[in-house]
Amino acid sequence: MGRWEPNARLRLAEAALQLFGERGYEQTTVAEIAKRAGLTERTFFRHYTDKREVLFDGSAVMEALLAEAVAGAPEPVEPIDAVRAGLDALSTVFDGRHEQSRRRQAVIVANTELRERELIKLASLSAALADALRHRGVPASTADLAAEAGMAVLKIGYERWVAADEERPLRQLLRETLAELRTVTAGAGPGPDALQER
Amino acid sequence: MGRWEPNARLRLAEAALQLFGERGYEQTTVAEIAKRAGLTERTFFRHYTDKREVLFDGSAVMEALLAEAVAGAPEPVEPIDAVRAGLDALSTVFDGRHEQSRRRQAVIVANTELRERELIKLASLSAALADALRHRGVPASTADLAAEAGMAVLKIGYERWVAADEERPLRQLLRETLAELRTVTAGAGPGPDALQER
Repeated sequence: MGRWEPNARLRLAEAALQLFGERGYEQTTVAEIAKRAGLTERTFFRHYTDKREVLFDGSAVMEALLAEAVAGAPEPVEPIDAVRAGLDALSTVFDGRHEQSRRRQAVIVANTELRERELIKLASLSAALADALRHRGVPASTADLAAEAGMAVLKIGYERWVAADEERPLRQLLRETLAELRTVTAGAGPGPDALQER
Repeated sequence: MGRWEPNARLRLAEAALQLFGERGYEQTTVAEIAKRAGLTERTFFRHYTDKREVLFDGSAVMEALLAEAVAGAPEPVEPIDAVRAGLDALSTVFDGRHEQSRRRQAVIVANTELRERELIKLASLSAALADALRHRGVPASTADLAAEAGMAVLKIGYERWVAADEERPLRQLLRETLAELRTVTAGAGPGPDALQER
């Protein structure tokens, strides 16, 4: 696909982000994206099924990176260490893309449909991560919980990363957010009637 | 609204759940739901905007319960304790509704659109919870993280609760899941290069 135009995919993505930022996501057409990139609509559709997909390209790569990192985590598998390894690996997708990610985030936040699509993407990542943990022998229910915790960290750490004044790498933000999650949950007392209930 | 038919809302909800279970969500019409409940379509539309809303009724109540519980949490506010209080309060919505919740879950799980709608509902709950925490003086970024952690607990605890062989109350499952989240995240070592990075 598109081997004869090695930069087409990236050029289309950049053109789309520019136009979404200038005119708004809804007001931008595929024809305009293609024109801005100096390519044809036909070329656009060789790379993306629609304009929305441009913003969610890379989800499959992220799922694969998460899964690979968990598969390669050292024995014995401590779920949260495997999750951290997964997040470390996933963060490499964003290397050198801080400004682009900020512009993308601004587009997503401004549009309900895109915010919902982003939630679905996170849910897919969570499922992939839980699956990878189960494959490493983590009990299903713990795997689901650890994966959801990982997604909470990804969501909040990512939001911190795309904040205007944040210059540190995503990997570091994710690690700090994971450490903060530990601190926050450690604050949890057993609760007034936990003993009776358990 | 509907004061003259005090049970209409519940009858419609029960009829809808029955039909969704028997025929599938997509194959069920509002006319059939109304008929099964012994009511008119007109009555249906006085209570619900569409058949999907029947399944997501109660979201506003849950948000309000979360917010109220956090608002009433004792000083000094420890975010995770406030989250636990919120989950305790939210769980009261499900008292006496274990079987109904199981049937609802089966309908949701079988339908992509409904699964996505459920994600959106969780995101709204998360936003309401984060907002309530901020109102209690929890720093915004910590409030967001604690709220996401709470939603991870709600999602997984709820899934455990609707499992076929689970008979304990939701409140207990949520508390146990929160305790497990603490255990899982406590397992996180600082990571091989955390010191250099922080």
